[in-house]
Amino acid sequence: MGSVDFVYPSMNDHQCAHRVAIPPPQPFFKSFKNSLKETFFPDDPLRQFKNKTPTRKFILGLQYFLPILEWAPRYSLQFLKADLIAGITIASLAIPQGISYAKLANLPPIIGLYSSFIPPLIYAMMGSSRDLAVGTIAVSSLLIASMLGEEVNATENPSLYLHLAFTATFFAGLLQASLGLLRLGFIVDFLSHATIVGYMAGAATIVCLQQLKGILGLDHFTNSTSIISVMRSVFTQTHEWRWESGVLGVVFLFFLLITKYFSKRRPKFFWISAMAPLASVIFGSLLVYLTHAEKHGVQVEGVAVGRSFAMFKHYHIDGNKEMVAIGTMNIVGSCFSCYLTTGPFSRSAVNFNAGCKTAMSNVIMAIAVMFTLLFLTPLFHYTPLVVLSAIIMAAMLGLIDYEAAIHLWKVDKFDFVVCMGAYIGVVFASVEVGLVIAVAISLLRLLLFVARPRTFVLGNIPNSTIYRNVDQYPNTNNVPGVLILEIDAPIYFANSSYLRERISRWIDEEEDKLKSTGETGLQYVILDMSAVGNIDTSGTSMLEEVKKTTDRRGLKLVLANPGAEVMKKLNKSKFLENIGEDWIYLTVGEAVEACNHKLHTCKPDSTKEETQPLNNV
Amino acid sequence: MGSVDFVYPSMNDHQCAHRVAIPPPQPFFKSFKNSLKETFFPDDPLRQFKNKTPTRKFILGLQYFLPILEWAPRYSLQFLKADLIAGITIASLAIPQGISYAKLANLPPIIGLYSSFIPPLIYAMMGSSRDLAVGTIAVSSLLIASMLGEEVNATENPSLYLHLAFTATFFAGLLQASLGLLRLGFIVDFLSHATIVGYMAGAATIVCLQQLKGILGLDHFTNSTSIISVMRSVFTQTHEWRWESGVLGVVFLFFLLITKYFSKRRPKFFWISAMAPLASVIFGSLLVYLTHAEKHGVQVEGVAVGRSFAMFKHYHIDGNKEMVAIGTMNIVGSCFSCYLTTGPFSRSAVNFNAGCKTAMSNVIMAIAVMFTLLFLTPLFHYTPLVVLSAIIMAAMLGLIDYEAAIHLWKVDKFDFVVCMGAYIGVVFASVEVGLVIAVAISLLRLLLFVARPRTFVLGNIPNSTIYRNVDQYPNTNNVPGVLILEIDAPIYFANSSYLRERISRWIDEEEDKLKSTGETGLQYVILDMSAVGNIDTSGTSMLEEVKKTTDRRGLKLVLANPGAEVMKKLNKSKFLENIGEDWIYLTVGEAVEACNHKLHTCKPDSTKEETQPLNNV
Repeated sequence: MGSVDFVYPSMNDHQCAHRVAIPPPQPFFKSFKNSLKETFFPDDPLRQFKNKTPTRKFILGLQYFLPILEWAPRYSLQFLKADLIAGITIASLAIPQGISYAKLANLPPIIGLYSSFIPPLIYAMMGSSRDLAVGTIAVSSLLIASMLGEEVNATENPSLYLHLAFTATFFAGLLQASLGLLRLGFIVDFLSHATIVGYMAGAATIVCLQQLKGILGLDHFTNSTSIISVMRSVFTQTHEWRWESGVLGVVFLFFLLITKYFSKRRPKFFWISAMAPLASVIFGSLLVYLTHAEKHGVQVEGVAVGRSFAMFKHYHIDGNKEMVAIGTMNIVGSCFSCYLTTGPFSRSAVNFNAGCKTAMSNVIMAIAVMFTLLFLTPLFHYTPLVVLSAIIMAAMLGLIDYEAAIHLWKVDKFDFVVCMGAYIGVVFASVEVGLVIAVAISLLRLLLFVARPRTFVLGNIPNSTIYRNVDQYPNTNNVPGVLILEIDAPIYFANSSYLRERISRWIDEEEDKLKSTGETGLQYVILDMSAVGNIDTSGTSMLEEVKKTTDRRGLKLVLANPGAEVMKKLNKSKFLENIGEDWIYLTVGEAVEACNHKLHTCKPDSTKEETQPLNNV
Repeated sequence: MGSVDFVYPSMNDHQCAHRVAIPPPQPFFKSFKNSLKETFFPDDPLRQFKNKTPTRKFILGLQYFLPILEWAPRYSLQFLKADLIAGITIASLAIPQGISYAKLANLPPIIGLYSSFIPPLIYAMMGSSRDLAVGTIAVSSLLIASMLGEEVNATENPSLYLHLAFTATFFAGLLQASLGLLRLGFIVDFLSHATIVGYMAGAATIVCLQQLKGILGLDHFTNSTSIISVMRSVFTQTHEWRWESGVLGVVFLFFLLITKYFSKRRPKFFWISAMAPLASVIFGSLLVYLTHAEKHGVQVEGVAVGRSFAMFKHYHIDGNKEMVAIGTMNIVGSCFSCYLTTGPFSRSAVNFNAGCKTAMSNVIMAIAVMFTLLFLTPLFHYTPLVVLSAIIMAAMLGLIDYEAAIHLWKVDKFDFVVCMGAYIGVVFASVEVGLVIAVAISLLRLLLFVARPRTFVLGNIPNSTIYRNVDQYPNTNNVPGVLILEIDAPIYFANSSYLRERISRWIDEEEDKLKSTGETGLQYVILDMSAVGNIDTSGTSMLEEVKKTTDRRGLKLVLANPGAEVMKKLNKSKFLENIGEDWIYLTVGEAVEACNHKLHTCKPDSTKEETQPLNNV
């Protein structure tokens, strides 16, 4: 930053400084109503109802809550063809996954099938996403198992456990629906992308570890999900490991991962990976039936079915209304022997790839599942547990998004810390602890941003009236006698003390520097308020104190570009009267121009001289 | 906002657009160290040690922790004279208040005197404020009484109660000193001015209500501080009220308030209100001694002494170092039969008005208190309780800052809600509940600010290249075919979904408006990033999605003035490559200029055409 070759930015005389406006006053209740509306209805859901007849409004309202009324009348044969393919594809994924995840939740496999039958029908009527494929997911299955497992033992008291699972589903649905109805869906926004990446990877890790039970054919296993107790459980009973089961598990897992990898490279063949789990179940069952492997250490399941994740991602897209749909689906589902369902991401992606056109694909899937329930259940009699474990592991490994974690590390170290906090919390403690850790770190970051805002010194960009951060633009020139500071956050109670100290430190440092180089002494301090979105009463007091400090030091405080909210508050708190409206400018450039004018017209020794009218200007 | 008479802001050809710089990369550990330093050492306490010899550094270090070493060598007789007057003045306030507040804490009055003797001596050595007068305060006295009262009954087990009070003082001191040493003083910043106003008024209200016991001469009284139980306690025993005590109480209260009002109007006579409490004690004691009023319903205290508040205010001024001094003072004090002390605001103000020069005034006060302890204790034998109650009430009424509450209502409604939350919580529940309510509302506000940032449409200020919020500057012109949006907060996980929805709603609304008026269709969306202080990975994903949406709609996304942090993150997340560096401008003016050039050179039908080189430019 060179100050010697500084050229005063020219501003023609007729281009006099612009006035900073105080926004027109608004009645309290109007502004209060506006804030409430922005907080709870940012998407303005009632916009489409404006200027419509009452009948039209009623129809639109019905369509709003039951989107099926919108798309059903225009449903064509072509759509049906597409939805048929998509529905059968996702059914072939839903059946084995449904069985597997029900096992994860310590529920009878048939419950997993029921959960892929009733909820999709309800979603098809109420849901607004055409791609979402409804079903159970691994993480919530695991959560049900760990939460209910603390109260009731699923093997000792299966009936009570089952009823508790339905009750939990009912209340989860109620919570979702009411969050949606109360427009509180934004609470979910506080789960950042980084939190979800870490949380999902952690959940996937512990679900995979749980599958060691099935793969190794163990009878006894820990109820805890923490990595330490699972590892202890696995390695204290090495004599119980069944090699037949282990080999079969590794082979199926390998097969599933290969098909997945292949389909990922060639999206056209999405159906290969979609069909692989069902193929594994059928092949595994045949194998057991033909070889009587159940007598050689391969455990076998009675009946079976399940799902994947990213419900958060879908809330983002569909918002509060979608929460109502998913909540209703769970409330109704819980009355029909279904447990917690949502829209798993992986299966929705398959649905999308399969070319689904409407939510009808969910209906097709439900019908396919019903057929399975009615006619194909006996086939699953010989399904080996190890195949289900392999299916779960293959699905879970896809959730460990290490590439996203690397991306976080590269782009934003703090987000990486959040992600690792969630991962480590989930893996070493529990799913709840992981979530709490991640949310706490994320909130801490928000608070730190407000508590410790950045302040920059601005310099003049050569041959312009633009002033920018000297760290970002090293070729800027400083303006002799003027210190320009930018504050980068709202001025609130949480940062007002800090900003007061930081501003006086900037002034100290600038004066020290000028003293050591023997340049013109400091005369003006310009605060660029462009990035100050709001200010509270602690903030206005802080500005008053800064004004007093600068006055005492014989410096003049100048504000540049305060926004609407800030001007309103400064006006009400009488700070505008205090500083004088002449010392508030629309841009930093105009403020500097005015300072230079005064600096060269008269050398102010005290602030009093400056406030007197200047004859030469 | 008229768009018909829009004149394109002229920019000369040689003034080509400036490039937005990506700040030079910094090694991770250096930037990490810088952030840590800014968070914990914003005042840069080691700055004065730079470029000094080791001996000098050692002396400066000693002076830093023991400021007495700095001022003692230059102490003059003139200073002593000033400090003597100030010291005696604050002692005359400290003695009666010390006795009164000790009673509030259910401690023997002599403990109140001890607490005005040892801690001031320690503060005189370690403290850096020359105005602070050390002593006990009403609010912490009340807190001690309510906290310890839950565990031990002070009348049944006075010895245990006393020891618990010293232990509490020791640990409070340890906490204060460690917060200071660990540079965590900024935690106190989260108590906003509004919180303190409400909290103090609430505490003052309940302390006043407690004094109804002394004023009315009641023997039995509730231990609870809530207004409901106090009122019940007062009005269920109307037959126990002593009219002699009541009359005396009202007379003394009236006298104290009158002197206070007088001194406030004429600051020169500050000593009148400072001396009034001591005069009341002496006069009251004489009155009891002469009239034997103790036999007519006026309760009498054995020995007596107390204080006021605003410790938070003083932390603000003195920071972490001051916390170490106050903490040490309490740690040492607790070993010498002192209970919790700090620097009460009201007495510090008296000290300041009395013209104190150094912390020596505290030493003088300590000596005066010592004399009182040694020789004047018998005089207090006849001090009537009702005088002490009147002294406490008079001090407390000064803490109810209703003018500040009115100011909060006028300037910032949200701060008023915080203030009332604290007040109602303290008065109707307890001091802890009030504090928790106020801090929770304040934090909620911070979170809401980040979760629901404001977005504005910008317009051109006539005859300039300046673009500002159209709500604040209603005479701005909009630019045909260009929508300019300003985002007013950092883009974080907590607001990225909201911003995505809000931006697409702005685009919808703008297109609807243009369609209805038949103007030029929308071609460009400029996001003004000036006020976006930071961005996280959820934020960069959000921008990518906005880019996709605008591309799909055939619009071009343009960024204006992203700051250093934002440019760094956008660069690392490859968004810069995605959007193309040609679409990032240093100012909104330059972005609009570039858009207009392209708009008039070729009418883009799809976004693809635009990215091709333009021959005419």
